[in-house]
Amino acid sequence: MDSKENGVDNGAEQSGRRGFLSKSAALGLAGVTLGLVACKDEAGAAKGGAAAPQKEGASKEIAPGQLDEYYAFISAGHGGEARVLGLPSGRTLKRIPVFNTDCMVGWGVTNESKAIMGTKADGTLKYTTGDTHHVHGSYKDGTYDGRWLFVNDKIHSRLARIRMDTMECDKIVELPNVMGFHGLFTDKCDPVDTKINYTTRVFCGGEFHIPLPNDGRDLDDPTKWGTLFSCVNAETMELKWQCRIDGNNDLVATSYDGKLAASNQYNTENAADLNGMMAAERDACVFFNIERIEALVKAGKFTTIGGSKVPVVDGRKAANSDPKTSVTCYVPVGKNPHGVNASPDGKYFVCSGKLSPTATVIELKRVMAWFNGELKEPRDAVVAEPEIGLGPLHTAFDGKGNAYTSLFLDSQCVKWNVDAAIAQFKGDKTAKVIIEKMDVHYQPGHNYSSMGETKEADGKYLNSGNKFSKDRFLPVGPLHPETEQLIDISGGKMRLVADHTAYSEPHDGIIVRRDVVKTRQIYNMDDFPNAVKPENAGIERHGNKVHVRLMSQAPAYSMPIIKVKKGDEVTLTLTNHDKVEDLTHGCALPTYNINFIVNPQETKSVTFKADHAGAFWLYCTHFCHALHLEMRSRFLVEA
Amino acid sequence: MDSKENGVDNGAEQSGRRGFLSKSAALGLAGVTLGLVACKDEAGAAKGGAAAPQKEGASKEIAPGQLDEYYAFISAGHGGEARVLGLPSGRTLKRIPVFNTDCMVGWGVTNESKAIMGTKADGTLKYTTGDTHHVHGSYKDGTYDGRWLFVNDKIHSRLARIRMDTMECDKIVELPNVMGFHGLFTDKCDPVDTKINYTTRVFCGGEFHIPLPNDGRDLDDPTKWGTLFSCVNAETMELKWQCRIDGNNDLVATSYDGKLAASNQYNTENAADLNGMMAAERDACVFFNIERIEALVKAGKFTTIGGSKVPVVDGRKAANSDPKTSVTCYVPVGKNPHGVNASPDGKYFVCSGKLSPTATVIELKRVMAWFNGELKEPRDAVVAEPEIGLGPLHTAFDGKGNAYTSLFLDSQCVKWNVDAAIAQFKGDKTAKVIIEKMDVHYQPGHNYSSMGETKEADGKYLNSGNKFSKDRFLPVGPLHPETEQLIDISGGKMRLVADHTAYSEPHDGIIVRRDVVKTRQIYNMDDFPNAVKPENAGIERHGNKVHVRLMSQAPAYSMPIIKVKKGDEVTLTLTNHDKVEDLTHGCALPTYNINFIVNPQETKSVTFKADHAGAFWLYCTHFCHALHLEMRSRFLVEA
Repeated sequence: MDSKENGVDNGAEQSGRRGFLSKSAALGLAGVTLGLVACKDEAGAAKGGAAAPQKEGASKEIAPGQLDEYYAFISAGHGGEARVLGLPSGRTLKRIPVFNTDCMVGWGVTNESKAIMGTKADGTLKYTTGDTHHVHGSYKDGTYDGRWLFVNDKIHSRLARIRMDTMECDKIVELPNVMGFHGLFTDKCDPVDTKINYTTRVFCGGEFHIPLPNDGRDLDDPTKWGTLFSCVNAETMELKWQCRIDGNNDLVATSYDGKLAASNQYNTENAADLNGMMAAERDACVFFNIERIEALVKAGKFTTIGGSKVPVVDGRKAANSDPKTSVTCYVPVGKNPHGVNASPDGKYFVCSGKLSPTATVIELKRVMAWFNGELKEPRDAVVAEPEIGLGPLHTAFDGKGNAYTSLFLDSQCVKWNVDAAIAQFKGDKTAKVIIEKMDVHYQPGHNYSSMGETKEADGKYLNSGNKFSKDRFLPVGPLHPETEQLIDISGGKMRLVADHTAYSEPHDGIIVRRDVVKTRQIYNMDDFPNAVKPENAGIERHGNKVHVRLMSQAPAYSMPIIKVKKGDEVTLTLTNHDKVEDLTHGCALPTYNINFIVNPQETKSVTFKADHAGAFWLYCTHFCHALHLEMRSRFLVEA
Repeated sequence: MDSKENGVDNGAEQSGRRGFLSKSAALGLAGVTLGLVACKDEAGAAKGGAAAPQKEGASKEIAPGQLDEYYAFISAGHGGEARVLGLPSGRTLKRIPVFNTDCMVGWGVTNESKAIMGTKADGTLKYTTGDTHHVHGSYKDGTYDGRWLFVNDKIHSRLARIRMDTMECDKIVELPNVMGFHGLFTDKCDPVDTKINYTTRVFCGGEFHIPLPNDGRDLDDPTKWGTLFSCVNAETMELKWQCRIDGNNDLVATSYDGKLAASNQYNTENAADLNGMMAAERDACVFFNIERIEALVKAGKFTTIGGSKVPVVDGRKAANSDPKTSVTCYVPVGKNPHGVNASPDGKYFVCSGKLSPTATVIELKRVMAWFNGELKEPRDAVVAEPEIGLGPLHTAFDGKGNAYTSLFLDSQCVKWNVDAAIAQFKGDKTAKVIIEKMDVHYQPGHNYSSMGETKEADGKYLNSGNKFSKDRFLPVGPLHPETEQLIDISGGKMRLVADHTAYSEPHDGIIVRRDVVKTRQIYNMDDFPNAVKPENAGIERHGNKVHVRLMSQAPAYSMPIIKVKKGDEVTLTLTNHDKVEDLTHGCALPTYNINFIVNPQETKSVTFKADHAGAFWLYCTHFCHALHLEMRSRFLVEA
């Protein structure tokens, strides 16, 4: 069944700029310039928008002293960090450095952070850039358990874990033989043992085709290149297995019963150039049968690639001709889809078309039926494919049966009803699929709703992450901020609550009820094996290796003078003995390019070569006390 | 005249926690623990605050689509960046990387940014940490001209300049023989040629005493160490001169007539330890006679230090016994002062006491009278010294004769009247100096008012930058955000407008009327001498040096395949040929740790060694178009 049969003009406004492109135009090569045309068009529209602010913008404001209702955890794009926002206020509560360096906290400066980030043989950082597209939480019983967040790095194919109690990154793993690690999602249950109803796996999609292994072979023959879908152990952060597929992986979703993971594919053509990637009229959403993959691994039915020891299962079509033993199911969906999202009732995955004006609703029990040999074609798992607008990308849910899809080209958020779409697909011409379309400003990418990716989706807020802000904010030169628009979806109509700015280039996020998050506000000193205490504080020398063990307590460090010799390899370990919450100390060493902080009861260390002589004031950089400026020690390097 | 004579209880509430410390306690060594005691006290008080939000907090909200009234440019502390906020909304409009690295824009990645930041012999960055305490704008005719911002780096004693049209850093200079470059201020006029009524100099205070030169000599004899006050040419960013002083420099202020610069000194004792720095009952504000210093330089009456060629004038007391030829004037002020600020009427500098509960008002014409031999003692330039509260740090002005001083220990902002303080100092016991005290949350550092450091001070907004947020926001683990509290000062009473969060650890800022700022939204391609155009695009090889000249236009780079050989030194230059505002492209090269952006019509380059073979997808990291994901080229490195 193709989308023409699904009915057009089903309640959607299709006039003016939103109707200027027919579906066929969007499907053809003319689509190459769509984004740009829409930009120009929007730029004109924007001027009116800024001059006449929207009446509905009366915000649900958080007054001074009031706390927000929700946390938003967002991936910060190619800034490499993750961020914590309060909603609805939009306050940035924290930046969490992950793949980037951050000289405030000392991420990439301290020995402890360098060990997490990874170093080269000479001790310098292996990577200092990153591209975080997605952040997802760990689950228990179908909702967030407040334990971990996971974020990806697309540039260097790394998965990072953040502890939600301290909101700091504690592990990073690099995926072997993967380039362009884009989508990620946690599992919600074990596929076999339903007692394990919490996250133990993280699934990682590999977007780009590369030679396998990527060691210089097959450079001129992309037909030999491939893509892997990876599974990481959430606890150990080690690779469990990988699955080679046809096409690529873009975003990832997982089922509530743990049996299925899926990834939308915009390049089923396995092409290496733009035109090739747009050649087919349909692309796919590939489903992974987790239980079967892990059974193959257990049975030793895998290969390895290059120097990697990670078991690789073959999920390509040629190796999976019998549905009853297949590990993958390729469900055809709209052209060059972007985004796959799980509905909170656990029944459906929705894939957006991007170059098709449709969303494809896939019923999970039908996918499982295909795996069991009870469904003829993978396409038969599709239960709806409504036309919703131009450039559909991502879909959020309100837990009341409605879906909210971002329309990149239309610069809109479309609210549509899943059951109505299914009825329409079955032939009900009276079904009212589209409920409302709302302009957003401008060109939305991801959207996400409060608790929307859990069984507790509460239908209160929707965030539309818009890629272009144009004239929504005071101009700041050629680089604009992005617009995060907060929309109240609790009533009958969508209501714009706020335009929040975001430093480019955030992607996805999750909105988490505040009661889910339980933070530790003070460290336990004994969590740090290298903690400096009065009994071991001081200077210890072995040859030219010097260990300086220092303590901080406002407004002084434990040693007013620290003396070493030029040429020494110095390890400086600092423990903050202050116990008052919020009483953080900094530690900067001028000319030695060192700065980091220690929170109350925390320990950190740096190692460096004292390669130039002189007197250097080691000083506190984090305002701690009325005598903060006077908190400094002499670090003397003898010639 | 000491501060006892200035009258106590002049309208100020002195009960409860705010009165628990007598002035003598604050002045004595008990002061060492003041910050901490206040913290504990505040933590308790805070719980009530969060549970019972303040009624006056109904904010002057900026609705979606509305633009802010003001820009705030803030120094972001030891994160090393500067930030641009919109006020009153508190939206973060931009982060400007300066001393830190930023893998989103490619600051510290591109050749152009590395040339500004400075590199070592091996081409790697010399420094990647920084500590920006102050940001100040360039002036014309006593107000901002919208041309430049200047920010300091305390860790590595660097001054950076930011172009306000593009809001990007364009120059950084390292100050020789200075450690702990803390305060900075631009001049507002030439001291001699009044036609030059705009910024041509930047003054930089050196806080820490160090051996001169700092090459390993005098490590054990701090009495031989010294501090320099530096003057930088705002246009060329080269050092003009330095002035050696007694004591240290903390913050800096400049007069509107260009004749005087000043720096408060918390360590007139020239001490090297905490107790020594608090020994004297009074410290000082040192004034610099700019005309005289530059006459000495012109006359060749200077020395140089170590390898530096910068002329150093002697501003120490011993060399300046005759006021009529002296280049410096040391005015005694309250103990361990922190902060010196110029009143917008051009008449006064106010120095806060920190360990003295007073603010000292110094009349500039009296300082000039001292330099002319018409005033007996420097202290006679003091025209008021009101007791205003505990832990006074910084003072802002409303242009209506009122001053607003942050009280770190009291966690308050105190509004007081300058003329009343002067009358009181003259003996008027009826003078009502303190107008109002307002609780802020908590432990304020800098405060700053709208246009408050110009002759156009408009008395609309005051920002209180508070060092501890405690429970004002949802908890995010051991590291708290800071609280930027926006206060409406336009009415009779101060009114709290908003609690904004700030990622630690911002310091100072300026609030600038939006009409002052004129940005460029699109670059001119010809501003970049290395711009890539169709006529020179492609690959050029000289031996093993390869220059890849690439263009971007959504949704493609100009070359789908780029082929080099392992071992090549590759320079990749990218020009963005898109002309639509906000249409930025990214450029990431996986496994090669490269990412940067090019704004419309901008050119940037990177140089790296192609040290490992394989196929790498050079891809667009900045969402540009519906086919953004498909915007990628094959970068092939042959073995």
